[in-house]
Amino acid sequence: VPRPYELYYWPNIQGRGEFVRLALEDARAGYVDVARTKGGMKALLAYLGGKRPGLAPFAPPFLRHGVLVIAQTANILHYLGPRLGLVPASEAGRTAANQLQLTIADAVAEAHDVHHPVAVSLYYEDQKREAKRNAESFRTERLPRYVDYFERILTAGAGKFAVGRGHSYVDLSLFQLVEGLTYAFPRATKRATRKTPRLLALRDRIAERPNVASYLASDRRIPFNEDGIFRRYPELDP
Amino acid sequence: VPRPYELYYWPNIQGRGEFVRLALEDARAGYVDVARTKGGMKALLAYLGGKRPGLAPFAPPFLRHGVLVIAQTANILHYLGPRLGLVPASEAGRTAANQLQLTIADAVAEAHDVHHPVAVSLYYEDQKREAKRNAESFRTERLPRYVDYFERILTAGAGKFAVGRGHSYVDLSLFQLVEGLTYAFPRATKRATRKTPRLLALRDRIAERPNVASYLASDRRIPFNEDGIFRRYPELDP
Repeated sequence: VPRPYELYYWPNIQGRGEFVRLALEDARAGYVDVARTKGGMKALLAYLGGKRPGLAPFAPPFLRHGVLVIAQTANILHYLGPRLGLVPASEAGRTAANQLQLTIADAVAEAHDVHHPVAVSLYYEDQKREAKRNAESFRTERLPRYVDYFERILTAGAGKFAVGRGHSYVDLSLFQLVEGLTYAFPRATKRATRKTPRLLALRDRIAERPNVASYLASDRRIPFNEDGIFRRYPELDP
Repeated sequence: VPRPYELYYWPNIQGRGEFVRLALEDARAGYVDVARTKGGMKALLAYLGGKRPGLAPFAPPFLRHGVLVIAQTANILHYLGPRLGLVPASEAGRTAANQLQLTIADAVAEAHDVHHPVAVSLYYEDQKREAKRNAESFRTERLPRYVDYFERILTAGAGKFAVGRGHSYVDLSLFQLVEGLTYAFPRATKRATRKTPRLLALRDRIAERPNVASYLASDRRIPFNEDGIFRRYPELDP
């Protein structure tokens, strides 16, 4: 019996952990979402405090697999990709997937910074004015730029896949990115994706993959909420 | 004769390209800093516009090597690492290096967002008030947290290297991170690094590596300036 993967991430949000959850779920890999089990949060915090063996993570998500402790979302997916059959085998394919995943990570970070432009440690309520200014630039410049870019990537490739000739973890992450943007900025995302039919079609195709569909319908999928990265504050998407 | 690496990055700043330049310089790899050559900016923009073969980059830096076009700083270094002898050969070592490099990238992004909390497309002068609030949180919370983390990594390892038993591209990047923080936030960095002797010693050791030292003394090393990521605005480091 292969050892199951142990995913460590905050138990109440999709956040960055969701990109890893989607890959594990799509591949039906055996995994434990540790912080959602009894005593799991204590274990997560012990790793963060450097009180466990292995390379200390700066922040969740991190994955424990055997003796390895691996942090940084894109790095976890780079490690899991070949093991889950979710990336082309060649170095060129893996490098392309990693590049696109890091660009998705940049988009995710910018979507987060919209509601926290001043400080992660402050509440949204304490930076609302600044958030409004940031949101305007995100909605009108950055969000369209990112979705246009990924549409271009899909167009340049086989039209259906971000990398290579089959679904990869990048496609799963693009699904999550579009879902998150749609949740947080429904109007702006609708406007921006009018010219990105391939990206929308990819989102729909991923949602229909049997393992993804059953995951999304399960209670393992945490709903979007206002503690996560993608938050719906109507004043930020007028 | 092996084909030289072609680095594409903005010609007037260190920015994110500097992490790649340092690796190429330390290894004395043959490379062309394309945008600093005649007609180079045009070539850079053609790639960004998707008018060249290969996977289109979202933003510089990107590296051309044979038929491959590789973007995202950490991804470029992950690709170059084994070729330049700047990362352990094992998957575990490469994964650890990539994780740390991505954490450095997060620190760099946060250092950038200090002077651009509202929008990348606006001038600093148009977001000075917000920058002041962001800078306070960066100086007192984030900067110390990052340098403490990397000190912990150096302490847990052999004490001298971030990954494995020799210098890697992560050490070169930590040098650049400390140099950049020291330039942009001299007072806050001095305070925060009082308790990180290993990180400061690593910075000094890297600066003395012969290839790095001769690079730093050459006109290939662009000086820090207020168009880059690390900017010295005295009002942000009172």
